[in-house]
Amino acid sequence: MSFDRLIEKIAEKQNPTVAGLDPKLDYVPEYLKEKAFSKYGETLKGAAKALWWFNKGLIDALWDIVPAVKPQAAYYEMYGYAGMKTLYKTQEYARSKGLFVITDGKRNDIGSTMEAYAAAHLGKIRIGNESAEPFIGDALTVNGYLGSDCIKPVVKVCNEYDKGMFVLAKTSNPSSGELQDLKIGERTVYEVMGDMCEEWGKDIMGKYGYSGVGVVAGATYPQQLDTLRKRLPHTFFLIPGYGAQGASARDISSAFDGNGLGGIVNSSRGIMCAYQKEKCGEKQFAAAARREAIRMRDEIMEVVGSIKLVTI
Amino acid sequence: MSFDRLIEKIAEKQNPTVAGLDPKLDYVPEYLKEKAFSKYGETLKGAAKALWWFNKGLIDALWDIVPAVKPQAAYYEMYGYAGMKTLYKTQEYARSKGLFVITDGKRNDIGSTMEAYAAAHLGKIRIGNESAEPFIGDALTVNGYLGSDCIKPVVKVCNEYDKGMFVLAKTSNPSSGELQDLKIGERTVYEVMGDMCEEWGKDIMGKYGYSGVGVVAGATYPQQLDTLRKRLPHTFFLIPGYGAQGASARDISSAFDGNGLGGIVNSSRGIMCAYQKEKCGEKQFAAAARREAIRMRDEIMEVVGSIKLVTI
Repeated sequence: MSFDRLIEKIAEKQNPTVAGLDPKLDYVPEYLKEKAFSKYGETLKGAAKALWWFNKGLIDALWDIVPAVKPQAAYYEMYGYAGMKTLYKTQEYARSKGLFVITDGKRNDIGSTMEAYAAAHLGKIRIGNESAEPFIGDALTVNGYLGSDCIKPVVKVCNEYDKGMFVLAKTSNPSSGELQDLKIGERTVYEVMGDMCEEWGKDIMGKYGYSGVGVVAGATYPQQLDTLRKRLPHTFFLIPGYGAQGASARDISSAFDGNGLGGIVNSSRGIMCAYQKEKCGEKQFAAAARREAIRMRDEIMEVVGSIKLVTI
Repeated sequence: MSFDRLIEKIAEKQNPTVAGLDPKLDYVPEYLKEKAFSKYGETLKGAAKALWWFNKGLIDALWDIVPAVKPQAAYYEMYGYAGMKTLYKTQEYARSKGLFVITDGKRNDIGSTMEAYAAAHLGKIRIGNESAEPFIGDALTVNGYLGSDCIKPVVKVCNEYDKGMFVLAKTSNPSSGELQDLKIGERTVYEVMGDMCEEWGKDIMGKYGYSGVGVVAGATYPQQLDTLRKRLPHTFFLIPGYGAQGASARDISSAFDGNGLGGIVNSSRGIMCAYQKEKCGEKQFAAAARREAIRMRDEIMEVVGSIKLVTI
């Protein structure tokens, strides 16, 4: 139920981080692109194949280090339906390696349309007498601007299939404050959103004290992260902004409780492009990603301390 | 530039309505499903084929009546990458018939990730020395919770490729007020969002007085629709909620200016499922959709009056 499966994987690996799989074509080693383009042409299919080989190499290098991966839907949609096939294959392969899959889609809609998104990404769908799994995710990021009509259909699917969601509260980008920091009475917009998540989560509580309705809270705003943690004791955090976006391990320390639980920190570019930063040669991309994932784990665990599974 | 192409199509057809293509499998006539399942099985591909034939029939029946179609991405994603192929084929076919394609994806993200969505849905992408069009849309719906970092990458692509976007302001669903109606000082959240759209639109003004940054404003809240129209004189409206969701032609009258411009009203289920309501037999689905699209046009044009193209 809820994020219990994620929390158990985090504790097992003593690592509260998630590797973002945002495969821009610029990140992909040339030799993989050449191989794909020579076989499929400089086409959407060729690009999608290159992304798939890149992701597979990354997953093979990371699966025993990180508890989770977070594919960013935009970078797959960017290559059309061929790209969406690579999203599916990436998710499927990550699951086969025991990884928790957080699909970063920031989806949002209402009623039966949101049910369609939830079924697409977290559940199963019915086709005649058969059922099918359109995409494979353990959690989905969601934008809550539309209110309960957007969230409740996802809660339902999460309860049915033992999945979770992360709702955008205070995002890591420079302009996040334009709306999110404005005051509604005594509360900011992101606090109002957070409070709604704490409330929605009551229908989907897990045994470690966290519900299945998490929030996205950026590491680039440590003060707001701290405020949200105090305000939302049962809400699990997905924390972007570490590394390439500028935040440090110290910035995210307040997101964690006394057992080292409460959040998972994302790094995408830092891990995927480690081979470019290391200048170790592109054929070493997977080994470099592994080194960076271990470095990041150790840096964050210094702040978090040890992670203990304590049921409530 | 901006929504000029849409406005010209609306004027040419004297019809400010858009046919939503939200093909739930329940909406698809049995004979099309049987044909698809017998050939491809009760699979994602089978479902995707049935949706494609349904959409093709609808477009063939509607293209000379409506100026635009609005495929809802969720109902394609629901059938995995096979479904996304049907989205592409539907968009491509609609374009070949001269229709303006509004992709209802409510996409949102930041910086280069939002650039990826914008390129995927409204632009082109570069692959080696070639370029490709991942999906085909003339406008995309967008959720602005993340602020300028989400909107500006789309404005850039809209300027480059002569496209537009609709940002969620006051949505048509029952719970839209949970966040959107709350007060930030003197303004509601949806007014704040609307004001930002009016501002963002300054970089992408069209010759008929409307920018390329439109808003979604639900017909189910006529009072708020009226408020937004007065507040946002240069912002074009996408208006859901007519018909199946309960709003009438009278409810949307305030969205239009003295030239009959300013908005486009969506109907999805009303048109797609007209054959079920008429009980005319499922093989008549396309003809029934056409009858309903004509009825809707006439009902709304009674309120709007005639539509005149006046440049500013």
